[in-house]
Amino acid sequence: MQPFPSFGSSKISRRSFFRFAAGASTLAGVPILTEAHFAQAQRLHFAPSNQGIHIDANENPLGPSEGARRAVAEIIPRGGRYLFDVQQELVATFAKMEGLSTEQVMAFPGSSGPLHYTVLAFTGPGKPLVIADPGYEAPAWAAKVSNAPVIRVPLADPAGAAAHDVKAMVTAASTPGVIYICNPNNPTGTVTSRAEMEYAAGNAPKGTILLIDEAYIHLSDATPSVDFVKAGKDVIVLRTFSKLYGMAGLRLGFAVGRPDLLEKISVLGGLNSAPVTAVAAGKASLADAELVPARKKLIGEIRAETLDWLKGQGYRTTPSESNCFMVDVRKPGKEFVAAMAAKEVYVGRMWPSWPTQVRITVGTRDEMQSFRKAFTESMAALAAGVRFPALPRRPADGPGTFLT
Amino acid sequence: MQPFPSFGSSKISRRSFFRFAAGASTLAGVPILTEAHFAQAQRLHFAPSNQGIHIDANENPLGPSEGARRAVAEIIPRGGRYLFDVQQELVATFAKMEGLSTEQVMAFPGSSGPLHYTVLAFTGPGKPLVIADPGYEAPAWAAKVSNAPVIRVPLADPAGAAAHDVKAMVTAASTPGVIYICNPNNPTGTVTSRAEMEYAAGNAPKGTILLIDEAYIHLSDATPSVDFVKAGKDVIVLRTFSKLYGMAGLRLGFAVGRPDLLEKISVLGGLNSAPVTAVAAGKASLADAELVPARKKLIGEIRAETLDWLKGQGYRTTPSESNCFMVDVRKPGKEFVAAMAAKEVYVGRMWPSWPTQVRITVGTRDEMQSFRKAFTESMAALAAGVRFPALPRRPADGPGTFLT
Repeated sequence: MQPFPSFGSSKISRRSFFRFAAGASTLAGVPILTEAHFAQAQRLHFAPSNQGIHIDANENPLGPSEGARRAVAEIIPRGGRYLFDVQQELVATFAKMEGLSTEQVMAFPGSSGPLHYTVLAFTGPGKPLVIADPGYEAPAWAAKVSNAPVIRVPLADPAGAAAHDVKAMVTAASTPGVIYICNPNNPTGTVTSRAEMEYAAGNAPKGTILLIDEAYIHLSDATPSVDFVKAGKDVIVLRTFSKLYGMAGLRLGFAVGRPDLLEKISVLGGLNSAPVTAVAAGKASLADAELVPARKKLIGEIRAETLDWLKGQGYRTTPSESNCFMVDVRKPGKEFVAAMAAKEVYVGRMWPSWPTQVRITVGTRDEMQSFRKAFTESMAALAAGVRFPALPRRPADGPGTFLT
Repeated sequence: MQPFPSFGSSKISRRSFFRFAAGASTLAGVPILTEAHFAQAQRLHFAPSNQGIHIDANENPLGPSEGARRAVAEIIPRGGRYLFDVQQELVATFAKMEGLSTEQVMAFPGSSGPLHYTVLAFTGPGKPLVIADPGYEAPAWAAKVSNAPVIRVPLADPAGAAAHDVKAMVTAASTPGVIYICNPNNPTGTVTSRAEMEYAAGNAPKGTILLIDEAYIHLSDATPSVDFVKAGKDVIVLRTFSKLYGMAGLRLGFAVGRPDLLEKISVLGGLNSAPVTAVAAGKASLADAELVPARKKLIGEIRAETLDWLKGQGYRTTPSESNCFMVDVRKPGKEFVAAMAAKEVYVGRMWPSWPTQVRITVGTRDEMQSFRKAFTESMAALAAGVRFPALPRRPADGPGTFLT
């Protein structure tokens, strides 16, 4: 048996990457020459990561906290050891903070792994994946690997609340394998209410896994869902240190779930351990009681300023509570992205169902001032008919494009 | 479809872990109380990782190189970014050094992931896994997940060369999915010759993947096998920074193979990226031309001194070229391990087929002096009939116990 014998889209995928990479190279002078650069190219990082303004990947420009930075530096000399005991301390700390048992928490090098494994483990040809549209794409790529149908349920009230249509998602299939809800949603930053989440946990068809991705939860007032795990529900909650905690590159995340569910997903990854650098930084981050409220407040203020400014300019955005939002540029999004990239301001991507809307990550206040300037100039140039080098379409196939 | 619906051994596994953890706790006062400590307990890290002498996990006590430590420290402020471009630089550097194309190299957070995924992708009920005995256990745990038969081929000349019986491995099954050769072998440290490896690459049944794990290659004079990849063979070679490079906790490894093979394994892991701390440290390590020869020489000298000393004491060892070896203590290995642990010298494990032999990792010169002292005292105490708290048997089930 080859469990996943076909990766049928691979040829297309590689060609798309190549076209994309070639275009990006032309645009910004990056020597992207081969298919193997696809991971980089996919990120819309046209320029080297230390040049230009990158508000395209929902990264946190603040980076790791001061305590986390010290913790990484201090553990470097012990980097030759696996240090499972330190990882277990991290898990115990998090479990205690959340009122969970340690058996209900598993650490991973980022939450992308357990997201991927959950879809592999619980979907398949007869067990579809149900996701929101627009929503985070990673689960759908995993469903390609498990050969599962993907049911995309449009967000309700797209020009207003733009929130998950939870009832429609729950009734979308009689035998769903996984229903995925990112709360707050990526890319819209919109929140699913507690009542809706309770409806999902209480009404999903028997045997369905409700996968609740709380990558952005700390940035919002959304109610966390880990209590469903405490209640023994068929729910897996994902957390990451990549967003508010500013540790995307360090790679640390948690899966929270019943031990039997965690076991089913963890065996697919071989129970790899998390990097000790990230584990040390994670422990320090959790120990800092000011970190979440302070960063939530700061990022929230910059987000509000940016949304207000865009509204003042006459542009509609999603009512985000996160570090990203969608803005309707009222023209093909790719033209806007190309215009911004020419000014070394790298904004996020479009979703096929919302072709005139572009995802923007909330950067620092300085970065968002640069964004405003580039936005104004880009809109003026596009209105005046200036043509920017056409960016190749974002590759629409290939798992693992997006990390949490 | 649930691709891997059964993890049949999980109940047994958790019970074993618990027994083991409970015993370890009693022994060394570590508060190992719950099943969730299994990952730590499995490592035979009875004591906290910063207490006692740990020569049980083939870690490198030298830790990351000076350049690698600096590189980690320097990249900390950028830890909030995914930095795919830096990872691609690492891949390009390694590919160039090895004469490979970048499409033939993929970076992972350690080589345990691609090892696991390779077995998942290419074995199954009709496609057995063929491994050496004693050999590294991780592939067999992955085969449990893919429901593949495991064929264990004893090492040839076990009291002498103790090397892979490559011809027997190649003929062990007419339809093998994966033949796994660790070169040098873990736990014996013995090398498979170039001629034998050519035989395997040339004579494995069509469609079989030859998985060559070169985790320890830098410590030995063994001939690397990446040229099989250049020749387009059905070969995947694994490299890690966990051993000679002293980066076990940082998590970085490579899979080297034809792009179509790499794609099949990488989709199982969701193309997760490696930690930027490890990527930076890896780049610095590769740039240091003195690192491999200097560490190879030092570890080789300490290994030779230790093997000579044991021989002088009348004990037989395997002819290792690596940072670990097996020593025949001529009594149940578990008694020896318990006696050593009582002195806070934590040695490695036994294999069921070699019950009187114990794996020893080569530590620093000071550590190996402590080992000698503890060895002499333990043997005298055991000979005098002293009973040490019985250690629970190492759990013999559960994937992901062992990391590279």
